[in-house]
Amino acid sequence: MTKDSFTIGLVQYAMAEDANANLETAARLVRRASEAGASVVCLPELCATPYFCKTHDESSFALAEGLDGPGLGRMAKAAREAGVTLVVPFFERRAPGLYHNSAVVLSPDGGLLGHYRKLHIPEDPGFHEKYYFTPGDLGVLAVDTPAGRIGVLICWDQWFPEAARLTALAGAEVIFYPTAIGRLESESPQQAAEMRAAWQVVQRGHAVANGLYVAAVNRTGFEPSSGGGEGVDFWGGSFVADPMGVLIAEATADDETVLLATVDRARIESVRRTWPFLRDRRVEAYGGLLARFGS
Amino acid sequence: MTKDSFTIGLVQYAMAEDANANLETAARLVRRASEAGASVVCLPELCATPYFCKTHDESSFALAEGLDGPGLGRMAKAAREAGVTLVVPFFERRAPGLYHNSAVVLSPDGGLLGHYRKLHIPEDPGFHEKYYFTPGDLGVLAVDTPAGRIGVLICWDQWFPEAARLTALAGAEVIFYPTAIGRLESESPQQAAEMRAAWQVVQRGHAVANGLYVAAVNRTGFEPSSGGGEGVDFWGGSFVADPMGVLIAEATADDETVLLATVDRARIESVRRTWPFLRDRRVEAYGGLLARFGS
Repeated sequence: MTKDSFTIGLVQYAMAEDANANLETAARLVRRASEAGASVVCLPELCATPYFCKTHDESSFALAEGLDGPGLGRMAKAAREAGVTLVVPFFERRAPGLYHNSAVVLSPDGGLLGHYRKLHIPEDPGFHEKYYFTPGDLGVLAVDTPAGRIGVLICWDQWFPEAARLTALAGAEVIFYPTAIGRLESESPQQAAEMRAAWQVVQRGHAVANGLYVAAVNRTGFEPSSGGGEGVDFWGGSFVADPMGVLIAEATADDETVLLATVDRARIESVRRTWPFLRDRRVEAYGGLLARFGS
Repeated sequence: MTKDSFTIGLVQYAMAEDANANLETAARLVRRASEAGASVVCLPELCATPYFCKTHDESSFALAEGLDGPGLGRMAKAAREAGVTLVVPFFERRAPGLYHNSAVVLSPDGGLLGHYRKLHIPEDPGFHEKYYFTPGDLGVLAVDTPAGRIGVLICWDQWFPEAARLTALAGAEVIFYPTAIGRLESESPQQAAEMRAAWQVVQRGHAVANGLYVAAVNRTGFEPSSGGGEGVDFWGGSFVADPMGVLIAEATADDETVLLATVDRARIESVRRTWPFLRDRRVEAYGGLLARFGS
């Protein structure tokens, strides 16, 4: 870690039906992020496919691949060509009948730096992830890259302060949250606005509580209903919050975009000296966090 | 719990030098809160005194009292007369040389329902609490009152997601955060604005992450420097966030006020069904939360 700061690039786009087309879109935007100065780039959750979890469909398991799969191969090439560290969220096939919602961190030479499997799995109308994904068993991820030490969590994880805290304790300077979140057709615009605000607030809260950068990377676009599942209007709005929770970059709801922000180590140091929460955690009083509920 | 909702009252005021005068102010505002319909009322942190922790001063220990002290006696009378559940934060003398930053929950008949000792103790320029207060050893508090089940945490606790989560797991429907936070004279208005925003965001984040109400109760007023400590301009701004993190009530920076809000059990139920975070916590993966740091 030779520099005092580094630039991150959040890649936001709408998914086409065809996985190869999506990966080419991703590669193009990774190149653009690199040209704009980013040294660490993050793609949205399940970066190669429409959000197939809208419904139960056994045929969707065919979209998954292993760590040696062609999609990750294509993205390793993209990382190499752009010369960036690349966070690639993908549908992981681990064994027959055993799948995860995962992400890898690829180095600028295309090598594997880290591997994360989504810990918290939703199962709600329009988001049937418990059907597809086994909860992760790799714990949290914080990994040194040529630019800095980064953490990766995925979507539903972003509502859980425990996941952010564990990633901070593992030394992350920035937590990336690749995401696929949007408005169900049955939800009113007002409901969606409230949800989107809550989504941003809770993640800005993680930035404050942990004195680090948070980068949420969402997809955009309307994906129509299929197999009885509702259509979802993904709300984009990728953003970066600094260690005081200040929103330092934010994308629109609809645009394909590369959002840039600077991770400034001096800012982390300064905020954590002003508010040294890590000094004062009462770890001996936290045993109850390992319980399901108090009664 | 016979009703579907209850009204809470947050009492915000500036401190005079004289403890009795402050307690009479508190009693007057508790009465006003009751007349306005509140059934649970909360006073600010260390509700009887100026914020003496601006400096080390051995004589300040004389301000403390036990659970049978005259200040709590006066507040029990105020609770009885107003017919409300009352949260009273106070400087607790437990034994010679052993003091806490505490709060009690008094029932509408003046009896003791609950007792909390601040878990997280700051020690920063202008906030020398580690000199005065031993970290609490009673764990978190959530207690049934005639109105509903309430939790109490105090000031610095509000930056720690662990404390909010533990209180939620103990069944609280609302967490009260009696507080004494403000701008040091040496801090710029811009710094203070950023800090105040972070203060609000992190607590709204707790409301979202835990699907409950959060009520922050701050003092107002400028308290001048003493004994080499800087003056502090307490920024008021008491507020209530609902389980979606929506700001449903907010006080100004300067006004003596009684802020009212409704805790709606149906809203808690509804938000938690939409976002069932308690269902999906990965307690088996949280062991690292009991560690100081990852390395």
